[in-house]
Amino acid sequence: MQTHRSPRTSPGPSPAAPPRLRVGVIGASGYSGAELLRLLSGHPRVDIAIATADRSAGRLITEVYPQLTPCQGMRFTALDPRAVAREADAVFVALPPGESTMVVARLVAASRRVIDLGADFRLHNARLYPRWYHWRHRRPALLRQSVYGLPEWHREEIASARLVANPGCYPTAILLGLAPAVSRALAAANVPIIIDAKSGLSGAGRSANLSFQLPETHESLEAYQIGTHRHTPEIEQELARLAGRGMAVTFTPHLVPMSRGLLATMYVTLRRSVTTAALRRLYREVYAAAPFVRVLEGGSANPKDVRGTNQCAIGVTVLTRTRQAVITSAIDNLGKGAAGQAIQNLNLMMGWPETLGLEQAGLIA
Amino acid sequence: MQTHRSPRTSPGPSPAAPPRLRVGVIGASGYSGAELLRLLSGHPRVDIAIATADRSAGRLITEVYPQLTPCQGMRFTALDPRAVAREADAVFVALPPGESTMVVARLVAASRRVIDLGADFRLHNARLYPRWYHWRHRRPALLRQSVYGLPEWHREEIASARLVANPGCYPTAILLGLAPAVSRALAAANVPIIIDAKSGLSGAGRSANLSFQLPETHESLEAYQIGTHRHTPEIEQELARLAGRGMAVTFTPHLVPMSRGLLATMYVTLRRSVTTAALRRLYREVYAAAPFVRVLEGGSANPKDVRGTNQCAIGVTVLTRTRQAVITSAIDNLGKGAAGQAIQNLNLMMGWPETLGLEQAGLIA
Amino acid sequence: MQTHRSPRTSPGPSPAAPPRLRVGVIGASGYSGAELLRLLSGHPRVDIAIATADRSAGRLITEVYPQLTPCQGMRFTALDPRAVAREADAVFVALPPGESTMVVARLVAASRRVIDLGADFRLHNARLYPRWYHWRHRRPALLRQSVYGLPEWHREEIASARLVANPGCYPTAILLGLAPAVSRALAAANVPIIIDAKSGLSGAGRSANLSFQLPETHESLEAYQIGTHRHTPEIEQELARLAGRGMAVTFTPHLVPMSRGLLATMYVTLRRSVTTAALRRLYREVYAAAPFVRVLEGGSANPKDVRGTNQCAIGVTVLTRTRQAVITSAIDNLGKGAAGQAIQNLNLMMGWPETLGLEQAGLIA
Amino acid sequence: MQTHRSPRTSPGPSPAAPPRLRVGVIGASGYSGAELLRLLSGHPRVDIAIATADRSAGRLITEVYPQLTPCQGMRFTALDPRAVAREADAVFVALPPGESTMVVARLVAASRRVIDLGADFRLHNARLYPRWYHWRHRRPALLRQSVYGLPEWHREEIASARLVANPGCYPTAILLGLAPAVSRALAAANVPIIIDAKSGLSGAGRSANLSFQLPETHESLEAYQIGTHRHTPEIEQELARLAGRGMAVTFTPHLVPMSRGLLATMYVTLRRSVTTAALRRLYREVYAAAPFVRVLEGGSANPKDVRGTNQCAIGVTVLTRTRQAVITSAIDNLGKGAAGQAIQNLNLMMGWPETLGLEQAGLIA
Repeated sequence: MQTHRSPRTSPGPSPAAPPRLRVGVIGASGYSGAELLRLLSGHPRVDIAIATADRSAGRLITEVYPQLTPCQGMRFTALDPRAVAREADAVFVALPPGESTMVVARLVAASRRVIDLGADFRLHNARLYPRWYHWRHRRPALLRQSVYGLPEWHREEIASARLVANPGCYPTAILLGLAPAVSRALAAANVPIIIDAKSGLSGAGRSANLSFQLPETHESLEAYQIGTHRHTPEIEQELARLAGRGMAVTFTPHLVPMSRGLLATMYVTLRRSVTTAALRRLYREVYAAAPFVRVLEGGSANPKDVRGTNQCAIGVTVLTRTRQAVITSAIDNLGKGAAGQAIQNLNLMMGWPETLGLEQAGLIA
Repeated sequence: MQTHRSPRTSPGPSPAAPPRLRVGVIGASGYSGAELLRLLSGHPRVDIAIATADRSAGRLITEVYPQLTPCQGMRFTALDPRAVAREADAVFVALPPGESTMVVARLVAASRRVIDLGADFRLHNARLYPRWYHWRHRRPALLRQSVYGLPEWHREEIASARLVANPGCYPTAILLGLAPAVSRALAAANVPIIIDAKSGLSGAGRSANLSFQLPETHESLEAYQIGTHRHTPEIEQELARLAGRGMAVTFTPHLVPMSRGLLATMYVTLRRSVTTAALRRLYREVYAAAPFVRVLEGGSANPKDVRGTNQCAIGVTVLTRTRQAVITSAIDNLGKGAAGQAIQNLNLMMGWPETLGLEQAGLIA
Repeated sequence: MQTHRSPRTSPGPSPAAPPRLRVGVIGASGYSGAELLRLLSGHPRVDIAIATADRSAGRLITEVYPQLTPCQGMRFTALDPRAVAREADAVFVALPPGESTMVVARLVAASRRVIDLGADFRLHNARLYPRWYHWRHRRPALLRQSVYGLPEWHREEIASARLVANPGCYPTAILLGLAPAVSRALAAANVPIIIDAKSGLSGAGRSANLSFQLPETHESLEAYQIGTHRHTPEIEQELARLAGRGMAVTFTPHLVPMSRGLLATMYVTLRRSVTTAALRRLYREVYAAAPFVRVLEGGSANPKDVRGTNQCAIGVTVLTRTRQAVITSAIDNLGKGAAGQAIQNLNLMMGWPETLGLEQAGLIA
Repeated sequence: MQTHRSPRTSPGPSPAAPPRLRVGVIGASGYSGAELLRLLSGHPRVDIAIATADRSAGRLITEVYPQLTPCQGMRFTALDPRAVAREADAVFVALPPGESTMVVARLVAASRRVIDLGADFRLHNARLYPRWYHWRHRRPALLRQSVYGLPEWHREEIASARLVANPGCYPTAILLGLAPAVSRALAAANVPIIIDAKSGLSGAGRSANLSFQLPETHESLEAYQIGTHRHTPEIEQELARLAGRGMAVTFTPHLVPMSRGLLATMYVTLRRSVTTAALRRLYREVYAAAPFVRVLEGGSANPKDVRGTNQCAIGVTVLTRTRQAVITSAIDNLGKGAAGQAIQNLNLMMGWPETLGLEQAGLIA
């Protein structure tokens, strides 16, 4: 069997060592997939058993990503769900929207634990798919089984889930930033929350595109899909759950000339007066037990400060002139916004400490 | 006399050539000052007569900025307002906030035309300076003489002004983007306009600062001065004039890892329903005669497309779900946001074509 | 006729104005082609009569390149050599290697002046094409008519040429940097000159390529085509002419995470002792009449200082310990390395001042 | 006592766990110092006992570097060598050139193991300091005790050393790239080796400097200290030892617009013919037992591929036309070029596995 062990355990498991989980990664050559390999290769309780990547099938992982030295000797394989189900007990699926539905269905049927990093199982209402994604969902029944994998707000459900839908990168930063205010009914009902988000270009995925060549992105900065971005229904679904009422948001994503990193700046009109200090205190209380959420002393979160980690940094400011809260929320779009959070979800599903394999410091400079 | 002629005219003015205006630049070694030199050295009707820069006094301009080849042989001088008044008929002042008041006062007293790129003469209400700038204005009487130099909205006043206060970079992009909607009473009165702006780092000025070293700014993106940025009163003053009523805005500037470029994304709650097409049409009508404002076919302006130019690109989108307009407005912070607009103002003050010396194409890639 | 006039002449040519030359640009949507449009649109003696771009045929130039405001209203056309010959008196051809041969042949046959920015007419020896370019030259007879368009070293030939082969970007920086030493027999005969060159990514052309996406080029820096780059024979051909003997060089190009700019660092073992001061003096003498070559006070040229211009900056240092000269030579790969030099060649072919349309200052910051 | 434990061991050492080493970091707020904290906080056998940083004394480490989450709660202290000697058994010193001499002397006198990341103990010949560093060495006797800490070539000496001088970033990449050829007498004696090196800006240290502001470094690329860089004697000292004869090199460092990463391109004239394949094979043999050196299949190493790691990637190409080898060698200047290598040295000094705490995969994208 082509099992791979992370080098940290190279002397081999001692007799007392707990058994290790065999995990698979489907779509392992995209940016999220590769980040999964990076993080999983340092996780103390898992072995990467299989990593599929259709375009790179047969190639050494280190040939495509020389940085992944712990994966030395391991090769990408073509996607064969049966082989994955055989080799792995838990599977991460990182495929483009619409492509994971049937793969996930099969793995769930084979009683594998599944964490889907794509969009196919995030929305509870199947009718939203045609509207926002322009395709009809092929396994709507599975949507009921799926748990939205934002651990800070769905910890218990995730712990008992077989299928977790890992949130999108934008929704992760946005929901963590808005949830305390919204769940405590601080947001005025009649004014939509405005979300102005900025992402580095790894968020656009790994494929050749003239628009993302360096000379094109250099000194370039723009909004895209204004009012139509597909993460919108996911944000509204979760906010509605927190608010106990329907929520409409105005969401404008931007691309900035960075590789990694995501910042959401959010404008919430407040129902009642509250000071900056009081609102920060509330946020701190809400997240007191959340190991990956940091409520800042100041108002400005910066994705640089969480790069390469599973952290989310949140800044809170109240503007008394206009009775608004300005919330900034920063994550690494490939970390807490994708691979890191997926591993956090796995830890919860397995009953392991939530932070396992996710404690390492971020890269400075 | 230390007059400098741009090389384009090297054969010497022919007998029929119109007389050239002698201009001075005070604070010529900062980014805005240097951009003034770059643009003025290609302007067909002016000679750069004097360029002051205290820290670089005595040095060749091309030693500090090798790019400024047309300034070959010319040296920065120390600031001596009397010398400037003697050498130049019109003067651009590019000094830090608070430092231009007395210099401008002296030049105005000497009957020189003055375009101040700083903040000292932008606010009509002297009492706003202590509040936003933390200093008391030393020549409040001059504020009445000063014209706010946004040509698209103050063309006539500028034409007859002796003292023009060149707008800040953020206010330029923001006001051009909001003015059509606000002046036509499309903005709901009870919901503050939200302005989320992003700027490259040349906007922070040219001085050694650990925070702006490449390894610190690399992959860095953050908001700053949330709710307290000093461009706020300037924005509100002009919007109030356009609206005919007091206006409060929520303004959040961000720094993005770019050198030049500024994008403002603005959220206006509409008083009545209007389609995207209709709103774009309105914007096109309003700016039909403005040579430097381009209303886009799409909704997303990009500062890359106007880099090195005096253009402002504006994108307009109406979100029917929330009855909001999302306006994006992009400029080059050193061009239309500073030096380019200053020259546009000079052109108007001199009765020259508005576009003189400002027609060149922007740098691609 | 679809003639286009640059806005600088908008008042229209006065009766005394000299007639303007109609020029065409073939391959106008690549980076070099677009830079040609940028520069030509500001040139006082030409009108852009036609601009072809097969992939963008029918689109407005400003739709593809919003920066090219002076080209407003003009459209790219599909390449039809007959139409080009009809519309234009002089033609710039900016096509990939091997694709310009037949187009150029046709334009030359139609008695048009041609400046080819590609590689098809740079090598005098047709047998070098199969070896370095892997195709056989289809019009070898034309190679004899073609003049190598490095104006500083072929001024007279260019002036009387009908077909000019614009040098490659690397050879331009390299030859300008080496020619004074080599032509004065300062380079030791038995030690090959070593050329370590670094280029921004616009030098790799404008097409979708996974390797040049921002997240891939970010923090990336590498050599490529070590010892096999196709600019090698061009460099050796010209050096041999200067030296009066065969010359072999070791040439290693690198890609650095920049958009524009090219730096060549060159190591010449000297035949005899010479001081840094004496060698700089020699370089200054050689280039005394060259308006676009600047020999620096120091040893380190920087492409940033010549960005957006047709300048070449050269730094000269002699290391007495090893009796070597270290020459650094910096250009803008799209300026002096492509479009700028092509226009300099046109100026010479037309008997105009060499600097016409090329004097503008470079962008600061 | 202010001891700090990395969170990975949070459950506390089990009775069977080996004792942990208390380490100190002097100069911990510079880029190398911070990278030491990052790596040490994940090292399974050490506790960071003390971290000094004069300018930041008293501040929380995570206030200065939010990325260093494992250092939560720990503060920088002012440098007091006595306190360091009391708290730590092994000490990393990361101070500017000339500033570590007396501190190291004191720690050595207190029988602490010392790894000095600065230049003060790298040169065996004290007389080279005045010449290259412009100061006289204050403890020349200690130079005899100091071991040059390039583990791949000094493993045994390091294992028994009390004082290790960690090599400079440039020398590390250069020596690893040249040593196989030089030690096997492949380099021609009469032709100096040419080294053209390129470094990201974190190599220039962490302090406010106008030249390194983003708008100044943007699109900037230049050589510096041509022929006079202070890493030259260190390179020559070690090459001479490998060659068994005096060696002079020509070394030109460049700064490229990156944050991290260092690439050296080296040109070695060969004494005898050898094929690329044979030379690669030789390199592979030489480094067969070196866990951090990777000899590539191709000729072009890229620092991106080793970012955040302690790896060195080496590409080897032989040019038969000129009988030269072109060696490319890439490291992370803060990893193998500083902090990573320092920890590798600690591991050897302690008799631990060489790779302890240094196995993690590098950041992708």
